[in-house]
Amino acid sequence: MVDDDTVLQRVELAPESLEHYADVAGRDVVDELLELGRSLRGARVAHVNATSYGGGVSELLRSLLPLYRGLGIDAEWLVIPGNDEFFRVTKMLHNALQGADDGPGDTDRELYLEHSAALARAFVDGFDFVIAHDPQPAALRQLRGRDGARWIWRCHIDTSEPNPRALEFLTPYIGAHDALVFTLERFVPAALRDHRVAVIPPGIDPLSPKNLALPANVSRGLVRWSGVHLDRPLVVQVSRFDPWKDPLGVIDAYRRIREEVPGTQLALLGQMALDDPEGWEMYRLILEEAHGDPDIEVLTNFTGIGNVEVNAFQSTADLVLQKSIREGFGLVVSESLWKGTAVVAGRAGGIPLQMPEGIGGYLVDSIDETVARSVALLHDPRLAQELGAAGRARVRERMLITRMLRDELRLLLSLG
Amino acid sequence: MVDDDTVLQRVELAPESLEHYADVAGRDVVDELLELGRSLRGARVAHVNATSYGGGVSELLRSLLPLYRGLGIDAEWLVIPGNDEFFRVTKMLHNALQGADDGPGDTDRELYLEHSAALARAFVDGFDFVIAHDPQPAALRQLRGRDGARWIWRCHIDTSEPNPRALEFLTPYIGAHDALVFTLERFVPAALRDHRVAVIPPGIDPLSPKNLALPANVSRGLVRWSGVHLDRPLVVQVSRFDPWKDPLGVIDAYRRIREEVPGTQLALLGQMALDDPEGWEMYRLILEEAHGDPDIEVLTNFTGIGNVEVNAFQSTADLVLQKSIREGFGLVVSESLWKGTAVVAGRAGGIPLQMPEGIGGYLVDSIDETVARSVALLHDPRLAQELGAAGRARVRERMLITRMLRDELRLLLSLG
Repeated sequence: MVDDDTVLQRVELAPESLEHYADVAGRDVVDELLELGRSLRGARVAHVNATSYGGGVSELLRSLLPLYRGLGIDAEWLVIPGNDEFFRVTKMLHNALQGADDGPGDTDRELYLEHSAALARAFVDGFDFVIAHDPQPAALRQLRGRDGARWIWRCHIDTSEPNPRALEFLTPYIGAHDALVFTLERFVPAALRDHRVAVIPPGIDPLSPKNLALPANVSRGLVRWSGVHLDRPLVVQVSRFDPWKDPLGVIDAYRRIREEVPGTQLALLGQMALDDPEGWEMYRLILEEAHGDPDIEVLTNFTGIGNVEVNAFQSTADLVLQKSIREGFGLVVSESLWKGTAVVAGRAGGIPLQMPEGIGGYLVDSIDETVARSVALLHDPRLAQELGAAGRARVRERMLITRMLRDELRLLLSLG
Repeated sequence: MVDDDTVLQRVELAPESLEHYADVAGRDVVDELLELGRSLRGARVAHVNATSYGGGVSELLRSLLPLYRGLGIDAEWLVIPGNDEFFRVTKMLHNALQGADDGPGDTDRELYLEHSAALARAFVDGFDFVIAHDPQPAALRQLRGRDGARWIWRCHIDTSEPNPRALEFLTPYIGAHDALVFTLERFVPAALRDHRVAVIPPGIDPLSPKNLALPANVSRGLVRWSGVHLDRPLVVQVSRFDPWKDPLGVIDAYRRIREEVPGTQLALLGQMALDDPEGWEMYRLILEEAHGDPDIEVLTNFTGIGNVEVNAFQSTADLVLQKSIREGFGLVVSESLWKGTAVVAGRAGGIPLQMPEGIGGYLVDSIDETVARSVALLHDPRLAQELGAAGRARVRERMLITRMLRDELRLLLSLG
C-alpha cells in the first residue's frame, strides 16, 4: 500500500460498560462518569500515539478507549505508522525532554518536521477533540492549522529538567495546542507555564490483566509454577531492566535482607523489548549477578511472563520493592498497592504522590534504608498488611483510571 | 567462573503435593502415583535437557519435577550450559532427525562429541536414573560409560523419517542407553527397534498457568482487554509461527468462515523466540496478511501475552483451530480440549491420538474441510459443546501429566 508510511492506523477495541467498574471503583465514581459522558455523547475524539503495544501509554489507552466508547463517546485510537528515522529522532527528543544531553540537530529537525507534515496531511478531518501523546505527534496540530478540532498535548514524560535545545525546538508546536496535560505539577516546564495547563496523573485499570482480582489459588499457583517456594517470604520488583530502576542495587539489598530474614526469595520481573539494547545488557548483568543463587528468579516475557503473572507476583509477594532512582511516574507502585501489598520505594517521580508517609509502605533514599524497612516489614506481617490496606484505599480513591478519565472528560468539556 | 561452559545448571523448583491433583485428575490416579512413589522413595533422578524456558520440553519438566519431588523422589533438573557452536550442531541434528536434508559433517560431529565429552566429565556421580531429553545430551551416557545410573533417552521429536546420516551418527550414542522413550509408536526408527523401547505420549499439567481453571470473568476479561468483542464468535489458533502450523492458511480459512458466519473474529497467538529468524519472517507475513483487518488479532509475548492469556483464549474461544501440516505431537490440542473447547485440527503427529473421530472436534486434511467443519460448529454451539466435553473427558483420562508421570515411574521401576 502506497500510503502505509503516513496513514495513521486505527486500533480496534470493543466498548466496555462502565457498570463493570461500579464494584471496584465505586457507584458514585461511575455515576459521575456517566453524567460527564452524557454531556459528551457522540463527540468524536481521537487519541494519537506511537505504538499500540509496549510501554505505559499504550497500556493506558488500551484501557481508556473502551471506556470512552462505553460512555457513548465516538473515540478512536490512532497510531502513527512506522519510519525508523522518524522514531530515532522522536526517541532522542523523548530522552532530551527527560534531560538527556543530546538535543536535536538540523537534520533531526528536518526529518521530524517532514514526516510530521506528511502525517498532518494524511490525518482525517472531523474530530471534535484530538489528544496527542508525547513527542511523536506533537507537531501535528501546528502543521494542520485550524481543522475544527480542539487539540490537547498529553505529556507522560518527566519534563522537569528538559534539554533546552529540545524544548526550544518543540515549544512552538507544543504551544499550538489548546491545552497541555502533565502528570505532575513540577513536570510543567517554565517556558510552557503561560499556556493552558492541566495536571492529570495517570491511573491504573482495576479490570486490566495486570490488576483484575485473581483468586488466591490462581495467583499462588502461577507463582509456584515459576519456581517460588510458597512457604517462604517473597520480595518482588517489577520494572524495566534499566539503571534508573537499579536492579543490581535491588539484588544487593535483597542479599542483606536475606541475612536478616533467612529463606527470603527475590523475583525480578521485566518486560523485554527488541529495540532496547541497554535493557538486554542490563538483563545480562542481572543474570550474571544472580547466577547460581537458587533464591533469585529473573523472569521476563521470554520465560512465559505476561501481564497476569505480573499481577500474580504483586498479589502474592510479601513485599514489593520499587527502588527507583528516577521515574516518569512509577505507576507500578499503585499496581502493587492495589493488591494490598506493602511497598518499599525510592523517593522519585510520582511515587510519593502514590504513597505519602504512613500509607502503603516506606519511601527510601538508600540501600541501607531499603534493607532496614524491608526487614522491618518482613518481621511484622501485620504492619505490612495494614500499610498495604491503606495503600489500596488510597489507590481506589486517587489512582484508578476512572479518576483519570473523569479529569480528562472535564478538560474536554471545559474546552468544548 | 572457569567451568561455566561444561557444568550443568540446576533449575530450582519447589516440591508440589500430589494431593492438589486429586480433584482434577482423580483420586485413583493420585493414589497409584503415591504407590509408585513409595517404591522409588529416595531414588536420585536427573532430567537433563538444553533449556530451562522455551518450548515444550522445558514446560513438561517445569511441571514434572515438582511432582517427582512431591513423591519423595530426589529429582533434579539439569540444564546443559551454553555454547553457540554446540547448539548450532544440536539444532541441525534435531531438524535432521525430523527429516531435514542437512546432516552432520565431520566438523559437526567433532564439535558435538568434544563438547559432549567435556559435559560427561563434569557430570556428577551418584544418580540412580538419568533421563536425557532429545539430541543435546544424547552422547553423555556412552561417553561416561558405566557410572552406576540407569540411563534413558527421551525423544520428543517426530523421528518417523529421520535423515539417515544424522540417525547413523547418533545411533551408537542413543543405543548405549538402558531404555529409549518415544511419544508415538511410529516415531521409533527401524534402526532402534531392537533396543528396549517404551512409548509414552506427553501430557498436559492441569494446574500449570496454561491449564489451571480460570473463573469465567477472568478469562473473558483478559480476552476482552486484547480487543476481542465478547458478543461475537471467536476462533483461535495457538502455535509457533512456522510454516508447518500454516498460519496463512488459517487466515485464508478464517476469511471464508467469516463469510458464512458474519462477525466472527480470529486470534492468532504465538510465542516468539529471539533465535528464530524464520519465526520472525512468518510473523511479518502474518501481519502483512492481516493488515487493516480489524477482526484479526495477532498476539505474542511482545504484546503482553503470557501463558495465562493463552489459557484464557483457549477457554473463551468458540472454536480452536490447529491446522497443522506436521506436528511433533501437538499437545496444544489437549490444552484446548481440556477447556471443553471444540477443535478443528489437521490430521498430523499426535493429534488423532488426542481427538479420535467423534471426540473433541474434527480432523481435517484441507482448507475446504477446515472451513466446512468450522462453520458447522459455529452454527451449532450445542454440538461444539458436546464435542468439547467429550474431548475434555478424554484428556482427563489419557492426556494429563499424571498419566505421563505414571508411565515414567513404571519404566524406572522396571529398570531398577
